[in-house]
Amino acid sequence: METKRIGKQTVKLTLQPSVAAAACVGGKKESEGPLRKYFDYLSNDSRFGAKSWEKAESAMLKMCYSLACDKAKTPPSDIEYVFSGDLLNQCAGSAYAMRDCGAPYFGLYGACSTMAEGLSLAAMLIDGGFCSTAAAATSSHFCSAERQYRFPLQYGNQRPPTAQRTVTGAGALILKENGDGPYITHVTTGVITDAGVADMNNMGAAMAPAAYTTLTAHFADTGRTPDYYDAIVTGDLGVVGSDILRELFAIDGVELGVRYMDCGRLIYYIDSQDAHAGGSGCGCSASVLCGHFLHGMAEGQWKRLLFCATGAMMSPTTNQQGESIPSICHAVALENSRC
Amino acid sequence: METKRIGKQTVKLTLQPSVAAAACVGGKKESEGPLRKYFDYLSNDSRFGAKSWEKAESAMLKMCYSLACDKAKTPPSDIEYVFSGDLLNQCAGSAYAMRDCGAPYFGLYGACSTMAEGLSLAAMLIDGGFCSTAAAATSSHFCSAERQYRFPLQYGNQRPPTAQRTVTGAGALILKENGDGPYITHVTTGVITDAGVADMNNMGAAMAPAAYTTLTAHFADTGRTPDYYDAIVTGDLGVVGSDILRELFAIDGVELGVRYMDCGRLIYYIDSQDAHAGGSGCGCSASVLCGHFLHGMAEGQWKRLLFCATGAMMSPTTNQQGESIPSICHAVALENSRC
Repeated sequence: METKRIGKQTVKLTLQPSVAAAACVGGKKESEGPLRKYFDYLSNDSRFGAKSWEKAESAMLKMCYSLACDKAKTPPSDIEYVFSGDLLNQCAGSAYAMRDCGAPYFGLYGACSTMAEGLSLAAMLIDGGFCSTAAAATSSHFCSAERQYRFPLQYGNQRPPTAQRTVTGAGALILKENGDGPYITHVTTGVITDAGVADMNNMGAAMAPAAYTTLTAHFADTGRTPDYYDAIVTGDLGVVGSDILRELFAIDGVELGVRYMDCGRLIYYIDSQDAHAGGSGCGCSASVLCGHFLHGMAEGQWKRLLFCATGAMMSPTTNQQGESIPSICHAVALENSRC
Repeated sequence: METKRIGKQTVKLTLQPSVAAAACVGGKKESEGPLRKYFDYLSNDSRFGAKSWEKAESAMLKMCYSLACDKAKTPPSDIEYVFSGDLLNQCAGSAYAMRDCGAPYFGLYGACSTMAEGLSLAAMLIDGGFCSTAAAATSSHFCSAERQYRFPLQYGNQRPPTAQRTVTGAGALILKENGDGPYITHVTTGVITDAGVADMNNMGAAMAPAAYTTLTAHFADTGRTPDYYDAIVTGDLGVVGSDILRELFAIDGVELGVRYMDCGRLIYYIDSQDAHAGGSGCGCSASVLCGHFLHGMAEGQWKRLLFCATGAMMSPTTNQQGESIPSICHAVALENSRC
C-alpha cells in the first residue's frame, strides 16, 4: 500500500478532503471581542438556558454542531464519524452534547489542541477511504473550567498577568471527500513535550515548546518554510507563549513575522477586556478557526493556513502533586488548492 | 477512492493489519485472580514504586507500553502513532506515561472502551496508508479511580452488589502492516447510547444497551451472525450487564451462548475475591484482551474474536447533577486469517 507518510510526524493526504462547513458559538465576553462578527451565534446568557455550567457547555456545543450540520446541508444522521472532546473531567461536555447525534463517535482528549486533533483524524479517515463525511467538534466554558481547574467563581480569586482566560465557545467543522475547499493537505501530529514548566497560571510558557517542536517537524517533514504559508496560527499560546514561540524560532534564525498569529491573542481586546495573557481552552482555537480564519480563507485573505492548536495535558491533581505540564501541538495545513 | 464502509457503523479493512505484540500488567488483586498467568507483570506494590495513585497508574502504563514495544522488537522511537487514554481527569495517566515516548500521540477519551477505540483508530491509520506501525494503550487503577469517582479509600465505604471493581491494570498493543496475525478485519464504531440509567453503582446496566446497539449494528453491517465468531467478548459489563446483554439478544431470538464472555466477569473469582459484579475500568478489557484472549488466539483456542469494549461516558459531576449515563461500545474483529 502507498504510504502517505512523508516524515516522522507528518502525512501528506492523497485525496485532501474539503471543509464543507464550520460553525462557532460564543458567550458574552466573546461577543464583546474583536472577532464577534465571525461567530454564528453569541449568547448573552452564559448558561445557554441550562441549569449548570457543565450543562451550559454541552448545550452550546450541541447548538454549534447542529449549526455546522445545517450549514453543510447534511443531516446529522449522514455524518459518518464524529470526533469530539473537551476540558471537563471525563470529557463530559462532548459526551452529553453528542448523545443524541446518532453518529459513530470517537471521544478525544487533547486539551486545547482538540480541534486540530479531531480535524487530523477526521481528515485521515476520509482520506483513507473509511467514510466520506466526518465532523470535528469541541468546546470550553469559562465558568465550568474555572471551577474545575482553579476555584469556584464565587471566590472571586485574582489571577496573575500570565494567566489566560478560558474562552466560552465552541467550534464544529464538517469535512467531506469533495468540495470547494479549503482542503486539508497535511497533518503533523504532535509528540508530548514537557519543558518543565509547572505553573498552571502560565500555560503559554508550558505549551510554546510543543508548538515549536511540531512546527519544526512540519517544516522539516514537508520541506516547506514558514513563508509558504500566508498564516501560521497557534491555538492559545496567548501573549506570553506566542512571544516565546517567536523567540524560539528567532534563535534558529527564523523570523515568523506578521504571518504568525495566535487565536488566544486575537479573540479578546487584551487590555480593555482585562483578558490577562489572552484566551485559552478548546473553544478558543476551535471558534477562531471556524469563524475568523475560515471566513478569511473564503474571502481570499489567506490561501494557505497552518493551524497549530496547542494543549496542556496536565490535570489539577498532577499539578498539586508537583508535576510539570506535558504539552502537545497538532498542526493541520488548510489550503485553497489541493497540492 | 475505494470505500471501506460496509454499513452505518462498520468498515471492512483492506490491508488488515496484524497484532505484532501485546503486553499487560496488573496489581495485587489481579495477581490472585483466575487470569494471573496471562499477565506479563504483576505487582504486589499497588503504588508501582510511585508516591501517589495517579503516578502509580502512569508508571504501570509506561512499563506496560515498554514491554509491548520489547515484545514487538520495535524501539519506541519506531512507533508512528500512539493512541492512549484513561479514566483520570484530563486523561493524565496516559499523558504522563507517554511524555517521554517520542511518538506522535493522539489522546483519547472513551472511558472503559478506550482499548477498542485505540485499536480501531490504530488499525484504520495503518490500513489507510498513514503509517506501518501504531500502538494502542490504556490503563486504570482501583485506588485512583475510587477516590476520583467515589470516595477516598480511607473512608472504607461499602459498595452495593451491582457495583464493579476498577481493575488495576494496563494493556498495550502494537499493530503492524504485516505479520502473522491475528489480523484486524472489521471495525464497528459505537454511537452514544443512553438508556436512562443514572446509578453510578450499576454501570453494567448503563452500558449493556450500548453493547447491544453496537453488536446489532456489527451483525447487520457485516451480514455475519454471532456464530461466525468463536468468541464475542464485551469489555466490562460485569455480572449484571452481561446478563442484561444476553437477555436483550434473547428477546430478538438470538442466544449468545458460551461464545459470549465478558472481561469483567473473567478477571476475578467473583465470589471468593469479593469482586461484587466483577471488574471494570479501561485496564479491565485491555489487560484481558492483551493477555488471556490474545494468548488463546495464538494457541488456536479462538480463531475469530469480536472484541467489544464498553464505556460509561459520565463524570461524577454530571451524575451529581442528576444526569443519566451515556454509554458507548466499539467493536473490533480479530481473526487468525485475513478475510
